[in-house]
Parts: sequence; structure tokens; C-alpha cells
Amino acid sequence: MTARIIDGKVIAAELRARVAAEVERVKCEHQLTPGLAVVLVGNDPASEVYVRSKHTQTQAAGMASFEHKLPADVGQGDLLALIAKLNRDPAVHGILVQLPLPKSIHTETIINAIDPAKDVDGLHPNNAGRLAGGFAALSPCTPLGCIILTRSVHASLEGLNAIVIGRSNLVGRPLVQLLLNENATVTIAHSRSKDLPQLCARADLVYAAVGRPEMVRASWIKPGATVIDVGINRLPGAEGKTRLVGDVAFKEVSEVAGAITPVPGGVGQMTVACLLVNTLRAACAIRGLPKPGV
Amino acid sequence: MTARIIDGKVIAAELRARVAAEVERVKCEHQLTPGLAVVLVGNDPASEVYVRSKHTQTQAAGMASFEHKLPADVGQGDLLALIAKLNRDPAVHGILVQLPLPKSIHTETIINAIDPAKDVDGLHPNNAGRLAGGFAALSPCTPLGCIILTRSVHASLEGLNAIVIGRSNLVGRPLVQLLLNENATVTIAHSRSKDLPQLCARADLVYAAVGRPEMVRASWIKPGATVIDVGINRLPGAEGKTRLVGDVAFKEVSEVAGAITPVPGGVGQMTVACLLVNTLRAACAIRGLPKPGV
Repeated sequence: MTARIIDGKVIAAELRARVAAEVERVKCEHQLTPGLAVVLVGNDPASEVYVRSKHTQTQAAGMASFEHKLPADVGQGDLLALIAKLNRDPAVHGILVQLPLPKSIHTETIINAIDPAKDVDGLHPNNAGRLAGGFAALSPCTPLGCIILTRSVHASLEGLNAIVIGRSNLVGRPLVQLLLNENATVTIAHSRSKDLPQLCARADLVYAAVGRPEMVRASWIKPGATVIDVGINRLPGAEGKTRLVGDVAFKEVSEVAGAITPVPGGVGQMTVACLLVNTLRAACAIRGLPKPGV
Repeated sequence: MTARIIDGKVIAAELRARVAAEVERVKCEHQLTPGLAVVLVGNDPASEVYVRSKHTQTQAAGMASFEHKLPADVGQGDLLALIAKLNRDPAVHGILVQLPLPKSIHTETIINAIDPAKDVDGLHPNNAGRLAGGFAALSPCTPLGCIILTRSVHASLEGLNAIVIGRSNLVGRPLVQLLLNENATVTIAHSRSKDLPQLCARADLVYAAVGRPEMVRASWIKPGATVIDVGINRLPGAEGKTRLVGDVAFKEVSEVAGAITPVPGGVGQMTVACLLVNTLRAACAIRGLPKPGV
């Protein structure tokens, strides 16, 4: 068997187009322009690339984009003051503080200061709790992207056996909640799990989110299973360059799986598109409008 | 094989004794008397029994117990005003609103009004979110009791395969988080799961929390597994009486399991004892003291 490749680039582009159409509609019908504020502290090169990409895509979707760049030595009080201002700003519906923050700043305090209604990264305990309780919530973007990619293969996830490898707050744990909401049966495995290959072998849906290059092998995978690879690992490549690989041994697994996401070009493509979805949803919720059609 | 019976009555009594000793210590060393306020709306007979039992056990542990009984037709505003008063009251460290509430009252609004630091039922989204995020949190009492019962059999749950059947906010979902914190590998099954017997068959730890009398059968259970039965179902018994049964077919499963909780006398015994644990922990946290030794 050769797996169908789940093309994150195409699916993300479609999603962004649907967001743009809904933004156009709420502008027309409700004079509402969703706005996203991104806060970047310091000048980590990778973070700068992400923030630029968010800015470009936000504007391309017809939303307002607000960038706030602060020096690496900014005081925690000043950062909290900025967040308080953004919380009050009626033009801002989503607030994203780019992580990681400098060590001098207490990340949890900063995240807890964001108005949960504007927490488009879905990291505030209130959103995590609403998600864990099965209520409507802004959910983290990467897990949301994983669900959308899976839904491109399976119209319904009901009753499917899913395994999530990795239990981070950013991906594994919220992904479990989203899968439960889709009525999948979910197993959460992690570094302390035994018999990981056997646990995987009965899964219809495999989510790898551990950060270990090519850990998931072909022998672990049930023939025909859908494999979603959240890992992005940088390995030394030819001629002193680096190459990106996922947590799944792509080449061999794609001989067994029914469908698989590549790295790059899979889950990574979805994150910013899902951030736009969350910003649109937050804007509609704050304005008291019905949930948008995306 | 005949399973070891996990005696909830004995384990709960030991736990209450440990709480009482710690209460004595914080009274002596820190002049702190932990206080629990229980709010009962209406006169549901079952709720009245629970509230009386909480009152008696709280006092027996050396804590202050405050009861607030409101008529079934109390206005939501009046109930919110009482909660605001209890939130401010320095003698009150735990607030429990007995559920279910009358239909005229919006339960979620009431729970969200409780100060998360005093939410000894662990139902506030902030606590659920902290628990889901792997942070210190007040966790719901019944799942906490399940973990303590399991730990009476297994010194460590690390790497054990657990299955939780049922995904309620009160039991199944928080229990998954507590099991993850114990480094177990966790599968969450529910009404839409397929092949439940096969899913159970590979579990070292089985938690049944579905509310279906004697659903879990001996043929589902791996020999030697530990079975924790959260169900409390009332069936017609002899001479027009009713009898209580769990979600597990106790008689046949106890021939296969390594250890099992009975119904009654298992998980149900632990709930109030865990409420006392949470009240003690909340009192210490509010006063800025280290986590108590229980």
C-alpha cells in the first residue's frame, strides 16, 4: 500500500480562503473587522519569522493585524500593562503572546492575564478547563489543525480508536479533548508508556507529538491507519545544511498507512490558519454574533 | 483467582484520621482552623443525607462546618450573593454547592462564581484547566478517591495501562488527568466506543463510571487487573426493597480481577474523605502554608 499524502499546504490554503470569505461577510453584515494582536518579546530569529508570517496571513484574510515588539529586557509589569490595554481595546479580538518568553518573565502569569475571550492560542486555564469539560472554548491551534487534517480523510471520527503520543499542554492534552469531542476512543501514551508499538498497532488514528525524530516505525502501524505527524525536528543534512523530519519514519510508514501528513507540508501549515479561525470565532463571540461558518 | 477486596470504608477512615491529625497540627502551629461551607438549595432527600454526612465528618475531623440551607425557590441573585459572601469570609476555605440545583438556577453560573481557591469540588473551569494542564489544582473528589484506592494496591501507577469507561465532567475526564499525572497510559472509552471488551482486556487498571448496572463482565477483564467501580445503580431487590449495584458484575469479575472495589463500600466511601482533604489543602494554600502531609 502507498498512503495518500494529506497535503497541509492545500488544506490550510482552503481554510484561509474560507476564513477570508467569512471575514468579508461579517464586515459587510455587521461592520465587524476581526483584529489580532501579536506580542513579540526579544528578537529570537525563529519567533520573528513566525510573527511575520502571522502578520502577513492575518492581513491577507482581511483582518486587522497589530504587532507589538518589546525588547528582551522588558519588565514583567510593562508586559502586563500592554496586555491589559489589549484586553480593553475593542479593535482587538485575539491576543497572542509569542512563546517562548525570556526567562526573566513568568510565562504562566502572562498567559493568565490575557482575557480568556481573546485567548486565541487557547492556553488560558479557563479555556483549557472549558475544553476539558466539553464546553465551547478557544482551543490551541495545532491540535485544531490535527483534527481538520484528520477530517479531510474521515467524514466522522466516531468510534475510531485514536492514540496520541505525547502529553504536552500545547498539543497532546488538548488534542485528547478535541478527539473526545469527536466521539473517538482515545489513548494517551507518553515517555513512561510501555509497549508503545502494541498500543499503536490497534489505532485507526495515530498522532505523534513527542519531538523524537522518526520514532514511529512502520511495524507499529495498523495497515490503512491515518497518521498525523506533529513533530518538527531539525537533523544535519547534506553539505552542512539541516533537514526537517517529523516524529514518524515517513518513508517506511507511508508504505503501511492509509493516509499520512508529510513534514514539512503537513500539520505545520495549519497552525496559523487555525489562529485565523480562532480570531474570527473570538470576534463573533465578543460581538454576540452566531458562530461563523468556519 | 479470587480478587482482593479493596475496602473503601477502611481506607476512607484511615484518610479521615490522617486529615484530622493534620488539622490538629495546623491549628497548633499556625492557629488555622480549616472551614467548609456547604450550600443546599431545596429539600431533595438524597442531597439532605449527603449534606448531613459532610457536616458530621467535617466536624469529626476538627474542622469548622458551615451549613447554608436555602428554599427551592431561591432567586439566582440571592444564591450568588451568598457565594460572594462566602468567597470573602476568611473562616471559610472550602465552598461546596450541593448538586443538582433546581432547574430555575443556572448551575454553570453558580460554579463559575465560586472563588477557584475555595472550589473544593474541583468543578470551576479554572481548576479543571489547571488539572488538564498538569498544574497543581483542586481536583474533583470522586476521581481523587479512585486514585487513592488504586494506590492502596499499586505503589506506583507508572507505565500501567488504564482504561476509563465514561467521560463525565465529574468523574471520567478529571480521572484521566489524575491518571496521566501518575504516569499511567490512559484510554478513555465511552458510549460511542467500539470493541469495549477488547479495549478493557489489555488494561491493568479498569475504571467503570458509566451508570449502567453490571455492564463490565468477567470476560472483559485481564486476569489480575485492578477494577475500580464508580457506578452506584439502584435495582429492585427482594421484598419490594432496592439494592445497590455498581457498573461492574461484581461476583463474576471478582473471580478474574486481582483487586476490586465493592458497591457499596468502595469508591462511594472515599468522596467525603477527599472533600476533607481538599478543604485542608485549600486552607493551607490560602494561608500560604506548605501543602499538608495528606
